[in-house]
Amino acid sequence: MFKAEIKSDTLKGLVNIVSTLIDEVKFTVGPEGISLKAVDPAHVAMVEVNIDAAAFESYSADETTIGLDLDKVKGVLKLASSGDIISMEQDEDHGKLVFRVGNITRRMHLVDTSGMSDPRFPQLSLSSKIDILVEELQQGIRASESISDHIALTVNSQGFELSCEGDTDSASLIVSKDKLKSMELPDGDTAFRSLFPLDYFANLVKAIPTGTTVGIELDSDYPIKMNFSFAEGNGKVSYLLAPRIESD
Amino acid sequence: MFKAEIKSDTLKGLVNIVSTLIDEVKFTVGPEGISLKAVDPAHVAMVEVNIDAAAFESYSADETTIGLDLDKVKGVLKLASSGDIISMEQDEDHGKLVFRVGNITRRMHLVDTSGMSDPRFPQLSLSSKIDILVEELQQGIRASESISDHIALTVNSQGFELSCEGDTDSASLIVSKDKLKSMELPDGDTAFRSLFPLDYFANLVKAIPTGTTVGIELDSDYPIKMNFSFAEGNGKVSYLLAPRIESD
Amino acid sequence: MFKAEIKSDTLKGLVNIVSTLIDEVKFTVGPEGISLKAVDPAHVAMVEVNIDAAAFESYSADETTIGLDLDKVKGVLKLASSGDIISMEQDEDHGKLVFRVGNITRRMHLVDTSGMSDPRFPQLSLSSKIDILVEELQQGIRASESISDHIALTVNSQGFELSCEGDTDSASLIVSKDKLKSMELPDGDTAFRSLFPLDYFANLVKAIPTGTTVGIELDSDYPIKMNFSFAEGNGKVSYLLAPRIESD
Repeated sequence: MFKAEIKSDTLKGLVNIVSTLIDEVKFTVGPEGISLKAVDPAHVAMVEVNIDAAAFESYSADETTIGLDLDKVKGVLKLASSGDIISMEQDEDHGKLVFRVGNITRRMHLVDTSGMSDPRFPQLSLSSKIDILVEELQQGIRASESISDHIALTVNSQGFELSCEGDTDSASLIVSKDKLKSMELPDGDTAFRSLFPLDYFANLVKAIPTGTTVGIELDSDYPIKMNFSFAEGNGKVSYLLAPRIESD
Repeated sequence: MFKAEIKSDTLKGLVNIVSTLIDEVKFTVGPEGISLKAVDPAHVAMVEVNIDAAAFESYSADETTIGLDLDKVKGVLKLASSGDIISMEQDEDHGKLVFRVGNITRRMHLVDTSGMSDPRFPQLSLSSKIDILVEELQQGIRASESISDHIALTVNSQGFELSCEGDTDSASLIVSKDKLKSMELPDGDTAFRSLFPLDYFANLVKAIPTGTTVGIELDSDYPIKMNFSFAEGNGKVSYLLAPRIESD
Repeated sequence: MFKAEIKSDTLKGLVNIVSTLIDEVKFTVGPEGISLKAVDPAHVAMVEVNIDAAAFESYSADETTIGLDLDKVKGVLKLASSGDIISMEQDEDHGKLVFRVGNITRRMHLVDTSGMSDPRFPQLSLSSKIDILVEELQQGIRASESISDHIALTVNSQGFELSCEGDTDSASLIVSKDKLKSMELPDGDTAFRSLFPLDYFANLVKAIPTGTTVGIELDSDYPIKMNFSFAEGNGKVSYLLAPRIESD
């Protein structure tokens, strides 16, 4: 059993966050809220989302799983204006989720989740942590476009750097320590630097809402972890992105 | 002889209403106003328009016919801002219509109307009539997109429904009787329901100006008739759309 | 040596003006400012630009030449908001121009200018001169679209005309003498008229900022010269466009 009401903006945020990696997703539903773990088809990036029942306008659910085609959910979101409430109710007899927006009823076939794996989100202990506004990441990505397919992220005692090195051209954005929201790194003068595929990094960052503070955990030649919350703190997201090994 | 001045917004509305079905059109011009009847190339939908001379800023005409390529008229409309007056004058010697917008003169070759048939607009007596805001129709169309190629319209004593049934998914929008502008149907508990091609229905509705009240006449497995007025009531439009027969 | 700061809007204006004709350009830099001359690949149009050091927020330079790929400079402009200052500094050791916008550093490889010719801008003495708002030219171009590939410009004692003659249709925009900003032509009743390729003329006019007064010099079957200034008068531009000879 699953029955809930949610603000269209909150559902839109959730769909954006997940659909950057996959089209069909398995939600694990329980009395306290909803969670999902997903990996992209190329196994380069992962996402983990936990949404507390408090993120919903109303919520009641037993333990169940719901498989959804996110493109169809985007179609439902187009029927709602900002501020509208969308109601969802599982129809277990027919294997459907029933959305209601205003005077519209949309009965959506559920995706079979039996073949969907439950990816294990690795527990990583990464050496450096910073908090940064998503707008800084976006600006660094814009500066890197059409220079190279990779972006290097570096944390050292000075601050945080996004940089991009092409055959003839280069770009870098430096956010000094005092401009970061926070910064933690081990004592000493070590720099932590990993290289990532620019398209993946750009797609993940594009899905993060404007104005969000992103927690970044970075090490050298290790995956990057990006954490942020949405739905007024009632939704938690972690992205994990595999590094590219530098050949030089 | 035909010489008239018209607000660019009025001419734009007229062109939108007709160009959704055909590119070249024959206007029947007379001292009291202008009319046209047209059927789309696949003979699925028809439009009939009557514009009173009062819809124009100035108007003088004898009985004549004027054939126009509506794409060219759209080009003239791009030269005018909202609120501009467009003047039109027939140049019978050269077979042209001369448009003037501000300090621009645009001489447009008239389309030969001799081969254009005058479609007969069938007189139908349809059992149910409702008046509804065009925005409700638009919302029902949006809900139906990518579910099926057909949309079903139903009138019963409860109100009006647009619904769409796909292989696995479905959508419906219900406008209850009290939300309709008006509703007339025979006594008894009969429902009137016809199925229409979604693309045609969507195109016709898209051409109706925002905020317009549309009169819908509906029967079972019969064409739908949609009536509305524009140009502050000085233009009257009727669309007729053939039904698809349900195979079930 | 070249080191300067410039408002992003000024640099954007400059790039628009030149990139309508060519992608890679050689700037001739000196202590007093920057100049460039360029001809399009088909040798139909030329541009000459002179920018005074006063157009910059700060400026210091020796005699040098700088070759730039304007698409890359457009990429830098996307990193700046209106009102931002962009700094540029030549790195002679590495053959690069270093742009700085906010906390971004963009090192751009310079284009080799050794193979780039220095086109000679012909000294023409054209019979008629008018000053006209660029918006009038834009409106005349819009009226000519999809009628013909050529546009005729005429100056006579009545004023200025842009006209376009197709096989069946025609359009013209007349700006009477009193609506022009100024007009100079020899005594007598001569008209000066030349025909130009519409696409070239439209592209040049599109690159001229809104609200600009354009000085037009026109003769019969001669190139047209269009002069205007930007950067609050500190930048001067001349376009030259070859005529098409009328065959009739």
